[in-house]
Amino acid sequence: MKQKKDREVAGLQSLVAVARGDEPADLLLRNGQVVDVFTGEVRRANVVLKDGLIAGVGFGYEKARKVLDISGQFLAPGFIDGHIHIESSLLPVHEFARLALVHGTTAVVADPHEIANVLGIKGVKYMLKASKGLPLDVFLMVPSCVPSTDMETSGARLSQTDISRLLKLDRILGLAEMMNFPGVIFGDETVLGKIVAAKRAGRMVDGHAPAVVGQWLQAYAGAGIESDHECTGRDEATQKLRSGMRLMVREGSAARNLAGLLPVINDFNLRRCCFVTDDKHPEELLRDGHMDAILRKAVSQGMNPVAAIQMVTLNPAEYFGLRRRGAVAPGWRADLVVLNNLQRFRVIRVLKAGKPVVRDGKVLIRLPAMRDRNVTGTIKPGRLMLNRFAMKAEGDMCRVIRLVPDQIVTEQRFTRPTIVRGYVKADPERDLLKLAVLERHKGTGRTGLGLVSGFGLKQGALGTTVAHDSHNMIIIGTNDEDMLVAAKELKRIGGGYVAVARGRVAARLRLPIAGLMSNRKAETVVSDLNRLLAKARIWGSRLANPFIALSFLALPVIPELKLTDRGLVDVGKFKLVNFFCTE
Amino acid sequence: MKQKKDREVAGLQSLVAVARGDEPADLLLRNGQVVDVFTGEVRRANVVLKDGLIAGVGFGYEKARKVLDISGQFLAPGFIDGHIHIESSLLPVHEFARLALVHGTTAVVADPHEIANVLGIKGVKYMLKASKGLPLDVFLMVPSCVPSTDMETSGARLSQTDISRLLKLDRILGLAEMMNFPGVIFGDETVLGKIVAAKRAGRMVDGHAPAVVGQWLQAYAGAGIESDHECTGRDEATQKLRSGMRLMVREGSAARNLAGLLPVINDFNLRRCCFVTDDKHPEELLRDGHMDAILRKAVSQGMNPVAAIQMVTLNPAEYFGLRRRGAVAPGWRADLVVLNNLQRFRVIRVLKAGKPVVRDGKVLIRLPAMRDRNVTGTIKPGRLMLNRFAMKAEGDMCRVIRLVPDQIVTEQRFTRPTIVRGYVKADPERDLLKLAVLERHKGTGRTGLGLVSGFGLKQGALGTTVAHDSHNMIIIGTNDEDMLVAAKELKRIGGGYVAVARGRVAARLRLPIAGLMSNRKAETVVSDLNRLLAKARIWGSRLANPFIALSFLALPVIPELKLTDRGLVDVGKFKLVNFFCTE
Repeated sequence: MKQKKDREVAGLQSLVAVARGDEPADLLLRNGQVVDVFTGEVRRANVVLKDGLIAGVGFGYEKARKVLDISGQFLAPGFIDGHIHIESSLLPVHEFARLALVHGTTAVVADPHEIANVLGIKGVKYMLKASKGLPLDVFLMVPSCVPSTDMETSGARLSQTDISRLLKLDRILGLAEMMNFPGVIFGDETVLGKIVAAKRAGRMVDGHAPAVVGQWLQAYAGAGIESDHECTGRDEATQKLRSGMRLMVREGSAARNLAGLLPVINDFNLRRCCFVTDDKHPEELLRDGHMDAILRKAVSQGMNPVAAIQMVTLNPAEYFGLRRRGAVAPGWRADLVVLNNLQRFRVIRVLKAGKPVVRDGKVLIRLPAMRDRNVTGTIKPGRLMLNRFAMKAEGDMCRVIRLVPDQIVTEQRFTRPTIVRGYVKADPERDLLKLAVLERHKGTGRTGLGLVSGFGLKQGALGTTVAHDSHNMIIIGTNDEDMLVAAKELKRIGGGYVAVARGRVAARLRLPIAGLMSNRKAETVVSDLNRLLAKARIWGSRLANPFIALSFLALPVIPELKLTDRGLVDVGKFKLVNFFCTE
Repeated sequence: MKQKKDREVAGLQSLVAVARGDEPADLLLRNGQVVDVFTGEVRRANVVLKDGLIAGVGFGYEKARKVLDISGQFLAPGFIDGHIHIESSLLPVHEFARLALVHGTTAVVADPHEIANVLGIKGVKYMLKASKGLPLDVFLMVPSCVPSTDMETSGARLSQTDISRLLKLDRILGLAEMMNFPGVIFGDETVLGKIVAAKRAGRMVDGHAPAVVGQWLQAYAGAGIESDHECTGRDEATQKLRSGMRLMVREGSAARNLAGLLPVINDFNLRRCCFVTDDKHPEELLRDGHMDAILRKAVSQGMNPVAAIQMVTLNPAEYFGLRRRGAVAPGWRADLVVLNNLQRFRVIRVLKAGKPVVRDGKVLIRLPAMRDRNVTGTIKPGRLMLNRFAMKAEGDMCRVIRLVPDQIVTEQRFTRPTIVRGYVKADPERDLLKLAVLERHKGTGRTGLGLVSGFGLKQGALGTTVAHDSHNMIIIGTNDEDMLVAAKELKRIGGGYVAVARGRVAARLRLPIAGLMSNRKAETVVSDLNRLLAKARIWGSRLANPFIALSFLALPVIPELKLTDRGLVDVGKFKLVNFFCTE
């Protein structure tokens, strides 16, 4: 009956031999303070590693090929970010991985929603390929809502069939945030079909249901949505916990809910909670860090540090079914972080699958870049001529998108536009800028035009190919000529951010990967970005980040008035509306 | 792109319609106190059910085809026993299910270890068949150690190939308690191979490692064992929690660890803990109940009732990967218990998949019995003649099994046996009874013989075909003649318990299913059992349950001296030894 001895059995034999103390470990971490996310204790112990796994925790272990003394330091499980869009870092995956790793993150669950809107399945597969073999484990969720609406032109669609196929792939954990909550709640067949596909594959379904409570929440959770990261209020968070959803407390660059939601978390519900970033911009990744920054903040606000660590280790691992990850225990993955203490959370070392990969902010190994011609050259806006920005005066009163500072919602206002020789013009004096969204995936030449107030630019134009969710080319300007130059430059550089004034490109950031991500180092990206922001500031915009503000003006699922390549969208009515109106 | 509408999608559409409040529920449970195992709250709410699932929790629900007012009562998730050997109840599966259900249990994870030792794969499959369609969900773990040793004759073996096959079956959750902990710790290839097979199938591996701590525990847990229900001490329990194992706090008929381990459980580690029974005898199931009895005891000892309920609902469900079970939340299974309060835990109603199945201690539906000729007629002890009990005097000093009251360990003693006409005889005056283990699976005629002290019988003989782990026929007696009658009666009735004196069968319990389980109602089994125990008491045994004590005398993995059909086993030396010795 004896079977041929297999490699896994042989591996286990070595592991238990090290655990017993009979064989030398690959590495002994001596005398650290071990953070125990099971019991809440922090206790001194030796930890021995073998073949990428933790073999044993406790004193008595001395035999090892290599010894690291970590006396006075703290040993925690590697951090996990349970929900992030890597594209928001503007970085190539390997460079995002570098910054995440040096801050103690050893796994992320990413939703490649942005690149999927540009490249569909090809984009999702690219993220898998680009993250393959990195010492950061990148798991993906399949984007659930591509495109987000039919009132815009995206580069690709993900059908239920596409989703079912992607769900079978390795490292894909489920269906990403189901943003179409009305579709779920009102039983849309296609939307529920995607959920059923994920359940059939035995996978998770993440949620996204801002302000959904009461019976609508019962419907949303009941349909099989298992998490939510959009809570802002305490009552909303409590209701979501009661409904069986995991509470993903978001603290990233775009939204910060930690302080607001911390009072909801207690000893009893802790297991159902984790911290996520959702979006993390490159300058914040560089300056503040990643999950370590969240831990620092949570503890500074009074949270038990081991509980906080549990929220970025064991809890997301359990939720996503990542077995034997997220704790310092025998047989568990040796993804480990050595910290100076549990207040500052300074990352001294990171070990990935037992290998030292970070020491004092430096990665110790080369992280390979992935070059793929399939994901560049995605900027196809059609012919770029001045008349694409021309708005014929066809009425008296028009709608204006009124920006709300530091928020992604806008307001709808009405005004009489400034008209010159039969055409609507931007009028910075009246705080009215022209906004253009140029379809950039298929070269249809389609352009949506409108006016924006509250942006504050007094000269020039700003443009980007990062424009949620379809990532068309979006340009805001004080005059049509600079807007045209911006469009041409965005096309020339294959996507990115540009600042143009008096017909000249004053600053640029190249984002050649799908028009969303750089192929450069984070430091270069941030310095390009700073130059762009400086120009915008000089030219009169008082927004914290006008490019981010710009990138949300085309998102037709966030109230109140938005602009896509198909025109203005009244989000409340969920339909396209005319620029000129009769009111 | 639209796919053919499928039934699951249609089902979800109905569910969300009820959740929204737009469609009537199948059943509305009005105004109960809902036990929320996510948040620790107990709060008043209406709960609506649809198609076997919970559709919504909260006020505002009024539309339903049927309404149950449960004002003043408590609504909890159905209880789950995460580790039980159903065979220990001596009941047929449907009858065990009845008793479990009336006490609020809606799912069990059973290890069919006993029947597997008799019938192998056939036994495991019988348990699946016998539990199919019952309103109690019976999940199985594949027995990991059949036979327990090579020093006994079992009815069957489960090879690694058998185990791999069984792991693929529906309702099989993993590998059952890995009792061969030395095999794990010292890297036995076959033992580790079984663990690897379970991991490959994505399944759980339960543990059984009494008193294993320190580096041995690191090896045991590191090999992939994920739970343990054998803890007796607090330090041992804490070490097992630290090692990442789930702590199954056992409180059954054979062992009671609740009081001892309660101090170990705290808010932080609660999620890693559950309550299990392991073994539950029929008289206790009838008299005290099942998981409800554990809850009553835990709360009477000061535990937070919602925490206690979590330990028999959400926690085992999460551990075993039973998704959307073990909580009162939308989209979760409507396996529900209505309780009078959270001190007495009297079960008023039970709903299984939304259907009322129990009301005030009575099941409301018929639980079908499963008859299967493949699992009866298993008593084949070979020819039964007086000489099978004869022990020739071949020395002076002999080993004696010394019973330790209320424990399954024994001690080894040495004495000069009473010899009559060249043969060793039982001598009740000296508290020396004769013990015989007759192989009963294959008719080999093999018999192990020995002497026992501490049993206290003054006349007659007791016998049973329940004898851990191989379940051979075990008979203890004051004279060979009564022992022979007992053996013949056990053969005649197809297995069970018998009490014989002066050549006459005084009482019997028939256990025709594999010689382990009755096909009668629990009340009948208990009354037969009481008659047997009364006889044993009258005949001089002061043991609480002499048949249980007898059933452990053949278990060669529990120290110190045991008897199998192959002879005496010195468990410390892990080998067969002679009855006569030279010391």
